[in-house]
Amino acid sequence: MTLDKLNKSSTRTHFSKELKNLKIGSEIRVAGWIEDFRNIGKLGFLTLRDVTGATQSVLLGDNLVKAKTIPRQSSILISGTIQPTKSKNFEIEVLVKEIFVYSEATQTLPIDPTGRIESDLDNRLDSRALDLRNPKISKIFLIRSKVLKIIRDYFTLNNFIEVNTPKIIGSASEGGSNLFSFDYFKKKGYLAQSPQLYKEQLVLSLDKVFEIAPYFRAENSHTVRHISEFLSVDIEAAYLDYFDIMDIIEELIKLILKSLKESDCQMDFSFIQNKSFADFINSPFPRISYEQCIKDLEKMGEKINFGDDLLDSSLRKLGEKYNNFFFIIDWPINLKPFYIHEHDENPLLSKSFDLQFGYLELVSGGTRQHDINKLKSRLQNQGLSIDSFTNHLRSFEWGMPPHSGGGLGFDRLMMVLCNLSNIREVVLYPRDTSRINP
Amino acid sequence: MTLDKLNKSSTRTHFSKELKNLKIGSEIRVAGWIEDFRNIGKLGFLTLRDVTGATQSVLLGDNLVKAKTIPRQSSILISGTIQPTKSKNFEIEVLVKEIFVYSEATQTLPIDPTGRIESDLDNRLDSRALDLRNPKISKIFLIRSKVLKIIRDYFTLNNFIEVNTPKIIGSASEGGSNLFSFDYFKKKGYLAQSPQLYKEQLVLSLDKVFEIAPYFRAENSHTVRHISEFLSVDIEAAYLDYFDIMDIIEELIKLILKSLKESDCQMDFSFIQNKSFADFINSPFPRISYEQCIKDLEKMGEKINFGDDLLDSSLRKLGEKYNNFFFIIDWPINLKPFYIHEHDENPLLSKSFDLQFGYLELVSGGTRQHDINKLKSRLQNQGLSIDSFTNHLRSFEWGMPPHSGGGLGFDRLMMVLCNLSNIREVVLYPRDTSRINP
Repeated sequence: MTLDKLNKSSTRTHFSKELKNLKIGSEIRVAGWIEDFRNIGKLGFLTLRDVTGATQSVLLGDNLVKAKTIPRQSSILISGTIQPTKSKNFEIEVLVKEIFVYSEATQTLPIDPTGRIESDLDNRLDSRALDLRNPKISKIFLIRSKVLKIIRDYFTLNNFIEVNTPKIIGSASEGGSNLFSFDYFKKKGYLAQSPQLYKEQLVLSLDKVFEIAPYFRAENSHTVRHISEFLSVDIEAAYLDYFDIMDIIEELIKLILKSLKESDCQMDFSFIQNKSFADFINSPFPRISYEQCIKDLEKMGEKINFGDDLLDSSLRKLGEKYNNFFFIIDWPINLKPFYIHEHDENPLLSKSFDLQFGYLELVSGGTRQHDINKLKSRLQNQGLSIDSFTNHLRSFEWGMPPHSGGGLGFDRLMMVLCNLSNIREVVLYPRDTSRINP
Repeated sequence: MTLDKLNKSSTRTHFSKELKNLKIGSEIRVAGWIEDFRNIGKLGFLTLRDVTGATQSVLLGDNLVKAKTIPRQSSILISGTIQPTKSKNFEIEVLVKEIFVYSEATQTLPIDPTGRIESDLDNRLDSRALDLRNPKISKIFLIRSKVLKIIRDYFTLNNFIEVNTPKIIGSASEGGSNLFSFDYFKKKGYLAQSPQLYKEQLVLSLDKVFEIAPYFRAENSHTVRHISEFLSVDIEAAYLDYFDIMDIIEELIKLILKSLKESDCQMDFSFIQNKSFADFINSPFPRISYEQCIKDLEKMGEKINFGDDLLDSSLRKLGEKYNNFFFIIDWPINLKPFYIHEHDENPLLSKSFDLQFGYLELVSGGTRQHDINKLKSRLQNQGLSIDSFTNHLRSFEWGMPPHSGGGLGFDRLMMVLCNLSNIREVVLYPRDTSRINP
C-alpha cells in the first residue's frame, strides 16, 4: 500500500467495531480520530475512535516517533495487523504498520470530547460537531436515527402513506398565535406550526397518512422542553376514532422500547420503577379521564375547576400515581382546538387525548370534527375567522370521512428514551429564543 | 350489525384491493367514496373507491332507492357478501346488505376526480384533496411514499445515520442570495436552502449522514422545474471521494427503478428508449467531463467557452447523445461553490459532478475542501466574508476528515419516475412565486 492512495475510499477496510470479529493476523485499515495516546517505554498505545467504537493500536519505532507529534482529535488512518491484547478494555489490538494523518486538530480545543472534563451545555452546543466525538453524545443521535426508522417502518406496515405537506403557509392556521412570518413574494407567509389542516384534508383520498417533519413556533419562552424548531411525527386516519389512535400510539411506543431494549444501545430505562420490563410492556398505559384527574388531584389536596388546564405540578403528581406513561382523555372542549370532535353524550367534553410522560406532554390527538357546519360553529366560538379557513373548509364539502389523528413531539420522546431533562440535549443544533447559531 | 356502531374502526374489514382474494360468500365491509353509480332496471351498480382500488357493488330494493339519493363522491360504508361478477372490469362484486353515509359531497364539485373531464393544473391544485381521488393522481403520491422508503432503507443499510439539521439559520450560508429572511426574536433569521454546512460539520464525528427534508429558495422565477419549497435528499460521507458518491447515487437510482418495476405500480419507463430495462440497469451511467461536453457540443455546432455554464438547450442535446441519465464531471471551479475541492492536477477544474436527466439536474455533488486555509481562500475569491462563516470554519480545526457528498432534488426525481414535465404535479401543495394556498 502506498500512502498517496490513502485519500481513496478503498483505504478503510473496516469500522472499529468490526475488528474484534476478525482472525488474529488479519491485515486491516481503520480511519477515525485520536482519542488518546500513551507512551510507555518503547511502546505507544493510541486509541483510535470512529462512530462505531474504539480501537487500541500499538506503535513501535518510527511510527511511535511520528505518533508523538500528532495532536489528539486529529483525523488519521492506520494500517496494521490484528493481534491479541493484554488490555482489559479491548478484545484485540492492532499492531500498526503505517499511520497517515488526514487533518490535524488544533492544540487547544473548546471542549474535551473524551468527556473527562465536563463542559456546560451552551459550550457543547457551540462546538456541536466536536461534542459528538464523545460516544455518550453520539449515542443519542444513533438512537434518534434508529427510532425514526422504527416509527416509519411501523406506519408503512400499517398502510399509512408518507406525505410532505408545506412548511410555508399562506394563512395563520389553528388560531395563529406564535407564528414566524415573513415576506413571501410580496404576500405574507408563515412558517407552519403543524401539518394539522393538510393532513386532515388528505384523508379525503389517501385514507391514512403520516409525516415526520420540522415545525416552527415563535413562542417567547425559555424552558427545558420547548424549542422554536422541533420535529413532529404526525398521523391522520380516516374511519378511526381517538381510541384507535391511542392504540396505535401505545403499540408504537412499546415497539420502540422493545426494539431499543433488544438492540446494542444499552438503554437505561430506569423510569420503569416498580415493574419488570416485560410487565411494563404487557401492561396497558392507563387512560384517565380529565374528570378523574380532577378527582385524583382533589384527594391530593389540589382543587382544579372543570375547564381549567392542568399545571405542570398537577401533571407531575398524576405521573407519580400512574407510573409515568399515561393518557389523559376526554378533555373539556374549551381546552381543545376547533377541529376536535365534541363528546356524543356531553358536548362540554371532547374526544381527545394527551399521552403524558409525567409532566411532559408527548402526544396530543383526538377524533376530528368532520361536519362542516359544526366546524364553522367551533371556529366562531373560538373567535376565529371562517374566511381565513375557506381553503380548508372546502374539502369538508367533498365527502369527508370521519377521521382521527395525533401529533407526537419527537424530540420530547427522545428526552424520555435517553433519560435527559433538557430537550436541547437530543437536538443537533437546537433553536430557541437566544440560540440561532451554529 | 347496527349502523349506530358504524362510526367505529371495527366497521371496515377490508381495503378494496383485498376483496378479490376472499372466498365467494364472505361477509365484508368496505369504506370509501362513490365514484360512479348506474341504475339499470331493478339493479343498481355502485363503484366504491378507496386509496387501494375500486369495488363494484350491486344494490337491490331499499338499498337501491337509498343509493339514488346519495351524491357522488360522498363518503360511505357498505356491508355485504362477495359474489361472482359478469363485469369485465372487476374480478368479484359485493351484493350490498346495508349502505351507510358518513358524509355527503356537494352536488357541484370544482373538478371531476374521475378524470373524465380534465381540469387544468391550477384548478386541480386549488382542490388538491379532491384531485387525489383520481387514482392516476394518488398513484404519484403512493410512488413518492414508496421511493422515500427505498432511499432511507438504502442509506441505513449502508451505515448512513439519519440526521435533522436546522431549517432556521442565523447567517446566510453558501453565498446567501435568494434566502427568505424573517425576524427571529429580534435577530435576523433565514430559511435554509440546503443542509450543506451542517452535514459537512457532522462527518467530523458521525462519519456518514443523510437527511431528507424541506428547503427553501426565494428565487423570483417561474419555471416547470423550480418551486420555492422543495424536498432534498442529502448525503455526506467521511473518507469518500466524488467517484464514490457517484457510485452510491447510481446504485440508488437503479435500485429505485428496479423496485418500482417489480412493484404493482405499473410504471411507464418509456424514457428508456433504445435498450431493454435489464440492459439499461446493467449499463453504467456515462460520466462525461465538462471539457468533453464542450467538445461534443462544438461538433453539434455550439460554441461554449471554458468556464461558461451549460444552457438548457445544450444539456438537452447532451441528454439525447447520452441516453438521458448521465453525469457531467470535473466542472470548472469557478462554476462551483466555495466548499468544492479543486482538481489535483488542474486547479481550474473541480472534483464535482452533476447527475443529469436530459436537461434536468437531479443531483449535484463533489469532494469537499477540508483544508481550512484553502477553504478561506475560496471564500475570499468568491467575495464571501470569512467572518460570516466563523462557526462553520471552526469545525475544520478539529481534525476534519476528507469527505464528499451530494444533494438530490427529490421532487425532480419524482418528475422523472412519473414521466411528468411540471414539478407541481408531484408535490402535494406546491409553493411558487404566485402560489402559497391552499
